Amino acid sequence: MPVSEFELIERIFAPLGVHRDDVVLGIGDDCALLQPSPGQLLAVSIDTLVAGVHFSPDDDPRSLGHKALAVNLSDLAASAAEPAWATLAMTLPGVDAGRLDWLSAFADGFAGLARRYDLALVGGDTTRGPLSITVQVHGFVPAEQALRRDGARAGEGIYLSGPVGDARLALLVKGGRKVDPVHAEAVAARLHRPEPRVELGRRLRGLASAAIDVSDGLVADLGHILERSGVGATIHLDELPLSAAVSAYLGETDDWALPLAGGDDYELCFTAPDARQAALRGLGCQQIGRLESEPGIRCLRPDGSPLNLSTAGYDHFGHD
Amino acid sequence: MPVSEFELIERIFAPLGVHRDDVVLGIGDDCALLQPSPGQLLAVSIDTLVAGVHFSPDDDPRSLGHKALAVNLSDLAASAAEPAWATLAMTLPGVDAGRLDWLSAFADGFAGLARRYDLALVGGDTTRGPLSITVQVHGFVPAEQALRRDGARAGEGIYLSGPVGDARLALLVKGGRKVDPVHAEAVAARLHRPEPRVELGRRLRGLASAAIDVSDGLVADLGHILERSGVGATIHLDELPLSAAVSAYLGETDDWALPLAGGDDYELCFTAPDARQAALRGLGCQQIGRLESEPGIRCLRPDGSPLNLSTAGYDHFGHD
Repeated sequence: MPVSEFELIERIFAPLGVHRDDVVLGIGDDCALLQPSPGQLLAVSIDTLVAGVHFSPDDDPRSLGHKALAVNLSDLAASAAEPAWATLAMTLPGVDAGRLDWLSAFADGFAGLARRYDLALVGGDTTRGPLSITVQVHGFVPAEQALRRDGARAGEGIYLSGPVGDARLALLVKGGRKVDPVHAEAVAARLHRPEPRVELGRRLRGLASAAIDVSDGLVADLGHILERSGVGATIHLDELPLSAAVSAYLGETDDWALPLAGGDDYELCFTAPDARQAALRGLGCQQIGRLESEPGIRCLRPDGSPLNLSTAGYDHFGHD
Repeated sequence: MPVSEFELIERIFAPLGVHRDDVVLGIGDDCALLQPSPGQLLAVSIDTLVAGVHFSPDDDPRSLGHKALAVNLSDLAASAAEPAWATLAMTLPGVDAGRLDWLSAFADGFAGLARRYDLALVGGDTTRGPLSITVQVHGFVPAEQALRRDGARAGEGIYLSGPVGDARLALLVKGGRKVDPVHAEAVAARLHRPEPRVELGRRLRGLASAAIDVSDGLVADLGHILERSGVGATIHLDELPLSAAVSAYLGETDDWALPLAGGDDYELCFTAPDARQAALRGLGCQQIGRLESEPGIRCLRPDGSPLNLSTAGYDHFGHD
């Protein structure tokens, strides 16, 4: 590799970092040295995006830099944590002039989102190999206010922070499906530049009983809450928040598997007792169902009839 | 992938974790929730090992699990930090029965080293893609006792914790070079199961002025200390700690580039004022030279003549 790891990280990523007083020593030593926030828990999450699996090597690198950080910030959001630091491990096939342009654009997208959340890039590793991107984020949350998957109770409401299915529809459009051009643009933006619900996550402290971000698909992710909390759920499909694009798609196809199983939306799915309904108003979230003691997920169509997930094409979606 | 990420991590890695009271919530939620050590700095480091670049897909997976953690613990050692937590992001081509056996052996090697340092695996991500392993380690060090690269001063001694060149010689042997079978076994062990100098790093608190781990080669890594500290150095080659295998190799080849530029040894290179010589005795380290105000690295052969690094084959070693 003609440009060393050291030079690469220093040149491209270091200048874009956010200054934080709690970063005693940042990029460029064996370890970053960080001052944790006193009296709070450290929340950490790590995620990898692989070329050809999670993104295309032809994708806009600026959007990819945004997304690589966004999918991790989404995990902090689901824990109600305040972002602080990130590390970035990149594997690159080689570093020629074109790759340096690509890296600069990637760094620009990454830094744009980092600045909005006052998040500092404190360390990294650059290695030669098939293109992939691993980001770890670190944030802080008071011990009693962290949101987890295991706090849901039967009788509570189930909420979604925004529409689901858009990212999956964007993939179908990319694969050739024809939709209204305005819809196509809207769902592409949702796929490539997801907005992590960090601010909402913090506002759910003390309100939500459990939370998860919708990365693998609503049914799969809600399923994690149900399993961890030992409860079941009924979802009312006519209450699902849907974009105009997905509503139009459903009108044509009746393919509920798309909003229920299509991942990559990065909305928050959370649960809360009815006593919190008033406090939740104004947060822009939609109640989509209710927790029950009977295990499993039941989805009711707008006409009240049950949707059979296994015949609705759900099993055709692979998750990794 | 027939086995989901969730099941994979839960099944193979979770049972092997070390229990620590400061892990409030470990693997299996959006974020791990961790209780930092009060009054200490958090030291973090992230490293990626890529199949075909840093290891062979045919390498013993148990040793690979050990090494993936060891190279990261080596960074904590160089910062004088006490290990606490790790996260693990793996990219796997697929999960069949053979791969599950491979993963179990990998986890076994990883867990064996983790247990020795009371280190808990607190989170991870498993994705489909070309085989690679990214580990981030987290440790703690009192603020005033962390070792960095920028604290070295002219006049101080330069020390090495153990022999260099073994890992590089092991690669030559793998490539067909004939050596004494006992030597071959010894250097292979050094390449595949390096021992991070964690205990030494902690004992260097308050003694060393700067430190780095020798991962890219002695000259390159010492060079980072020199650059960060604004000093130069003279190294006496007859003071270099060398294994019997590397000594025999040098007797045959006079190829000093091997111990000077061959990486992957994971010894500590550190600097200290002479006033600390007495305290350093008994730590098993060897003084190899001295820091000077004149920039650059000068290497003196056993007969006192200078070694010209650029003609000694040094430039033929690639680093990434």
